[in-house]
Amino acid sequence: METVLARLLPGAQIAPARLHAAMRYATLEGGKRVRPLLTFAAGEVAQARPERLEVAAAAVELIHAYSLVHDDLPCMDDDVLRRGKPTAHVEYDEATALLVGDALQSLAFQLLAEHPLADDPSAQLEMVKLLAVAAGSRGMAGGQQIDLEAVGKALSVPELESMHIHKTGALIRAAVLLGAACGNGHDAALRERLDQYAKTVGLAFQVVDDLLDHDASTANLGKTAGKDSRQGKPTYVSAMGLARARELARELRHNALQAVAPLGPPARRLRELADFIVLRKF
Amino acid sequence: METVLARLLPGAQIAPARLHAAMRYATLEGGKRVRPLLTFAAGEVAQARPERLEVAAAAVELIHAYSLVHDDLPCMDDDVLRRGKPTAHVEYDEATALLVGDALQSLAFQLLAEHPLADDPSAQLEMVKLLAVAAGSRGMAGGQQIDLEAVGKALSVPELESMHIHKTGALIRAAVLLGAACGNGHDAALRERLDQYAKTVGLAFQVVDDLLDHDASTANLGKTAGKDSRQGKPTYVSAMGLARARELARELRHNALQAVAPLGPPARRLRELADFIVLRKF
Repeated sequence: METVLARLLPGAQIAPARLHAAMRYATLEGGKRVRPLLTFAAGEVAQARPERLEVAAAAVELIHAYSLVHDDLPCMDDDVLRRGKPTAHVEYDEATALLVGDALQSLAFQLLAEHPLADDPSAQLEMVKLLAVAAGSRGMAGGQQIDLEAVGKALSVPELESMHIHKTGALIRAAVLLGAACGNGHDAALRERLDQYAKTVGLAFQVVDDLLDHDASTANLGKTAGKDSRQGKPTYVSAMGLARARELARELRHNALQAVAPLGPPARRLRELADFIVLRKF
Repeated sequence: METVLARLLPGAQIAPARLHAAMRYATLEGGKRVRPLLTFAAGEVAQARPERLEVAAAAVELIHAYSLVHDDLPCMDDDVLRRGKPTAHVEYDEATALLVGDALQSLAFQLLAEHPLADDPSAQLEMVKLLAVAAGSRGMAGGQQIDLEAVGKALSVPELESMHIHKTGALIRAAVLLGAACGNGHDAALRERLDQYAKTVGLAFQVVDDLLDHDASTANLGKTAGKDSRQGKPTYVSAMGLARARELARELRHNALQAVAPLGPPARRLRELADFIVLRKF
């Protein structure tokens, strides 16, 4: 994935060089790459060609990278550390970081439009729409807005779930469905299973993030630990307590594995990723 | 165009309501709508259907609206007045304004992907790519970066031209070419003429902006006047003097009219727009 992203991002020598260097800084050498891994794993179930999955996975990861850059800005979370490095606006400047996020989003859609990803171009337009909806005001950006408004409030568990379905779930779902769409993932039954899997691992991802934020040290996370609870953001730990949050993570892992169990051996990586998402320590 | 944008933007009552209200605030009731007018005018030459042009024009205008919201943020131009109203981050808050821009960009690509705009879906994918490249690091966002780095510098006229070809020219070109692509605009000779027209009116637009910024009052412009020169940004007036800048605007108008002269009566609106862009007083 590093090689793919390094190839698809404009070179740091291409003008405007500072912007391109900053786009590469914010995207390369960091992150767990969970979303690209999900794209590849879902693509395996749908017998998708790797060269298509590379592009779809990169597009999803660029949207994710842009959201982190904007999320770290002083007017949002005002964070200085991301993926073990200074955040983009600290390493460069705020205005450049703003443009980095903007340009990474454009590049994601450029990639989905310019590479052949589906046998039928109409299906590829559907892929563009899927990512746009997942990134937009009724997806990830909308989730960020709900998050902004939730600071200092005690959300109920369903409210918390709705926030995360938008904020992280929508893009994780897009990662899975785009992987399937690169192959024969238009089969309604397969899509339904993958959708269920994606929804479940998406929530699991957030529950575990909250558990790690509660438990871990900054060094292990590569980002500032304990931040959400200190900033008065509701978390699964604050909403339901530590023990119940841990139990929920286990349940969600079980449900994710159940959802793809009938898909047999080709779903091995999807199962491994459900395990990784819940059992990870960073 | 107001009706179209009002219909295509999510309603202000749809959750997250504050984000959707702010997206509508930043987009509706304001602006000259030069880019949508160019899309419609180019579409007329290519016999494009109005319902396609509406969507393409809206997508371009959403990209433009997002760029204004981000450009006005404190870390960029730090402006408080836009289109005669408080800027989005003043009316709402900085974090919401950041998300407004992000979500408007996603929505632009969603619109281009979800509505039928071309007989051939492959051609429609090309339209998505065209807008993505025009908006991204080698288009508008790249131009903003060049602009950031130009503050306080004395640019040569070719350097100034290169900045504006990216910053405003790329999106104006996309507005024209997307309009043509909604119809039979794939003819190479027609495309070449429209490209020449777009490049010329794009530059003319910027030269006239600089002249108006030099001459006009804030009340007439609907945005803060005299700002660029006060912020130490190079302008055509500062780079070549008032008289030569006025002459350049006239030359560019002439060249734009020449470029589309062979297209005859269907190019009437393109000619009217070249006149409007150069002769406007706001």
